[in-house]
Amino acid sequence: MIRTRRHPEATQRTTRLEAFTDGVFAIAATLLVLDLTSYSLGTVTSDAGMWQALSGMGVQMFNFVLSFVLLCLLWMVHVAQFEFIARVDGVMLWLNNGRLLFVVLVPFATALTTEYSEWFAGRLAMPVVFFGAVLFSRLQFAWARRRRAELMPDVTAKEAAVMGADSASAVTLSTLVLLIAPWTGSIAFAIFALDPLLSRLYGRRAERRFPDATAG
Amino acid sequence: MIRTRRHPEATQRTTRLEAFTDGVFAIAATLLVLDLTSYSLGTVTSDAGMWQALSGMGVQMFNFVLSFVLLCLLWMVHVAQFEFIARVDGVMLWLNNGRLLFVVLVPFATALTTEYSEWFAGRLAMPVVFFGAVLFSRLQFAWARRRRAELMPDVTAKEAAVMGADSASAVTLSTLVLLIAPWTGSIAFAIFALDPLLSRLYGRRAERRFPDATAG
Amino acid sequence: MIRTRRHPEATQRTTRLEAFTDGVFAIAATLLVLDLTSYSLGTVTSDAGMWQALSGMGVQMFNFVLSFVLLCLLWMVHVAQFEFIARVDGVMLWLNNGRLLFVVLVPFATALTTEYSEWFAGRLAMPVVFFGAVLFSRLQFAWARRRRAELMPDVTAKEAAVMGADSASAVTLSTLVLLIAPWTGSIAFAIFALDPLLSRLYGRRAERRFPDATAG
Amino acid sequence: MIRTRRHPEATQRTTRLEAFTDGVFAIAATLLVLDLTSYSLGTVTSDAGMWQALSGMGVQMFNFVLSFVLLCLLWMVHVAQFEFIARVDGVMLWLNNGRLLFVVLVPFATALTTEYSEWFAGRLAMPVVFFGAVLFSRLQFAWARRRRAELMPDVTAKEAAVMGADSASAVTLSTLVLLIAPWTGSIAFAIFALDPLLSRLYGRRAERRFPDATAG
Repeated sequence: MIRTRRHPEATQRTTRLEAFTDGVFAIAATLLVLDLTSYSLGTVTSDAGMWQALSGMGVQMFNFVLSFVLLCLLWMVHVAQFEFIARVDGVMLWLNNGRLLFVVLVPFATALTTEYSEWFAGRLAMPVVFFGAVLFSRLQFAWARRRRAELMPDVTAKEAAVMGADSASAVTLSTLVLLIAPWTGSIAFAIFALDPLLSRLYGRRAERRFPDATAG
Repeated sequence: MIRTRRHPEATQRTTRLEAFTDGVFAIAATLLVLDLTSYSLGTVTSDAGMWQALSGMGVQMFNFVLSFVLLCLLWMVHVAQFEFIARVDGVMLWLNNGRLLFVVLVPFATALTTEYSEWFAGRLAMPVVFFGAVLFSRLQFAWARRRRAELMPDVTAKEAAVMGADSASAVTLSTLVLLIAPWTGSIAFAIFALDPLLSRLYGRRAERRFPDATAG
Repeated sequence: MIRTRRHPEATQRTTRLEAFTDGVFAIAATLLVLDLTSYSLGTVTSDAGMWQALSGMGVQMFNFVLSFVLLCLLWMVHVAQFEFIARVDGVMLWLNNGRLLFVVLVPFATALTTEYSEWFAGRLAMPVVFFGAVLFSRLQFAWARRRRAELMPDVTAKEAAVMGADSASAVTLSTLVLLIAPWTGSIAFAIFALDPLLSRLYGRRAERRFPDATAG
Repeated sequence: MIRTRRHPEATQRTTRLEAFTDGVFAIAATLLVLDLTSYSLGTVTSDAGMWQALSGMGVQMFNFVLSFVLLCLLWMVHVAQFEFIARVDGVMLWLNNGRLLFVVLVPFATALTTEYSEWFAGRLAMPVVFFGAVLFSRLQFAWARRRRAELMPDVTAKEAAVMGADSASAVTLSTLVLLIAPWTGSIAFAIFALDPLLSRLYGRRAERRFPDATAG
């Protein structure tokens, strides 16, 4: 149907893909608030009752902020990657669509995890969706590296390897979240505090693989 | 009211049209999730009950993913076309609005098809809306070819004919979906797997019409 | 608070204003569908009942398409104006915000007119909101003409006057709709079919005011 | 995870940040209307009853317009700042995310303040969210000034100081709103009428701190 599929070697500018992606992220992030708005505080009869009703929204608020931060993180990874990706082909477009499918699911997964956190499947919803988005971000960058000459002509093989360390770290950590969250709940996402450390570690390992590289 | 109508030959840059289109597609794709969020899982009393409740969302999930993929497909066709369309006139703007009208209807059609799939009209909702969007995408590109000198100055007549093969294939296939889906349900969209083949076929036929073309 | 207010002569690029405007239009247009989605078809027990339930949505559908077309019209007027407006000042920004306030109200006014069309105020909702948006579009262009040297440096006084004929026609017609709609309902918007004629008429009158102009 | 965190000195273009921000603002502003749409006018049996039902929406309408104007104000401050900020680093990205978190909360805070205005916490919701957004806008510009050489290379230290007066005024005024609103309700936002005066005052004080400056 589209030109890029018939000539898989053909590529396009990234402008529209970036605009579509920014739009989907912005809407998913803003729709999160509907989960708060639809929450009924019930009948309130005093100032004290009002504060109590609001503090009853603790879990809603925590998961709202958490999902917002995760969406921002996913968006920042996308921006960082496309700061260097100059053109896209049909495969890149479909991997981006897959990535966005999981982004779109974030408000749904957040609502599930909030409402059904006492059940295994409920605690799993947010980690699964986040893992899916991270996985597709990894696949997309892997494909960009494979067709580096056409898609990232200004990036050296070594630079691409080092950049890839970021998404490798994200995959490792979101796998861990997937394994831990069913037992601990959303607090498992705290493990992402290790991300700066782990991505630096992976980055150094990637650098070492290139002989002409100055050792870290 | 607008300048392009009084001077139909006048044209505009495509920047704003692309931004508006990307916005509408991004929002329509993200609103699909509201259909999942509003689905009530009912009272859940055990982990097994939770898994069962989730698996009861199978149809919702299938139609959500299907509509998301169809929207991505429609968006990619738009992007591919406007990679070559340099300027738009008043007719192009209105054909684009018609295209977006059907895009906006996708979340509604998805909800209809999901909830009323046992009735003829329910199974028809998604195919009709998708057919409308594909038809307008065909009309829009046809108009761009007719005013090629002003709207696609960098594209040769032959290139435009070959590109047009893509939307021709989409029209054929979505017509077939329209005829099959009332009997089979949304599985009829699987016929789009034939799209790469059919658009290549149409593309070759288009090439052959141009004498100075190298035979396929 | 913002720089443009302290130095009213200071101006900005139009990029962000255009992006914000396109976003608001895209979302308002897409939110219209929620009015359809939230409409309950009730219990359906046969194919015939399904068709009947759908045809009961006639008014909803008509007002949905009407509001979508009106939003597209308002958006196209904005695009046509900003094809020539190169920079904006603080006044332009606030007039644009006023314009968008009425755009944002379109889904609400559509719902009101659909649900309460038997009452005077219900039939008035869509015309009032549309009139507000058109009025602000007129004010915004009037201000751009007043500061033409800074905001539209590439446009001659005569060209600006002719362009202004478009929004003048829109103001006349939406005033008429405002007067007629309470008695006839939304069919009053059909008067916009006169717009090409009226804006040509106003355009010629504007041309005649400039002595060095070739008579129409 | 992202490149900017591992090399905090690394910077990016502002295009994507601006697109994401415009999207979030546009959606938050448009979602405000859902608060009006979901309001039930109840059963209406006469034209007089319809007008009465509509006038019963006074508080909803007032808070809708107020929140819309506040969002426009916050957006204009963002635009004015990024008219001069040329590049962003990882800290800027996270401060922008914090800013947007409060923007996303505006529809929720508006609904709270509208529905629970008789309670202290209800009257506080909008002022708190607005204060959060203003505070982050102040922090973001403060950081941009601190790394002026990399982030705003075309702006002199004095110009940056004068521009900072705008967000300083906004912080002062939104602090006052925070203190007054619990007693007076949303009318406290009227104090923002003092903003042009106060930001000019702060601007002059900032100018005086630079010896080579011409006295105001």
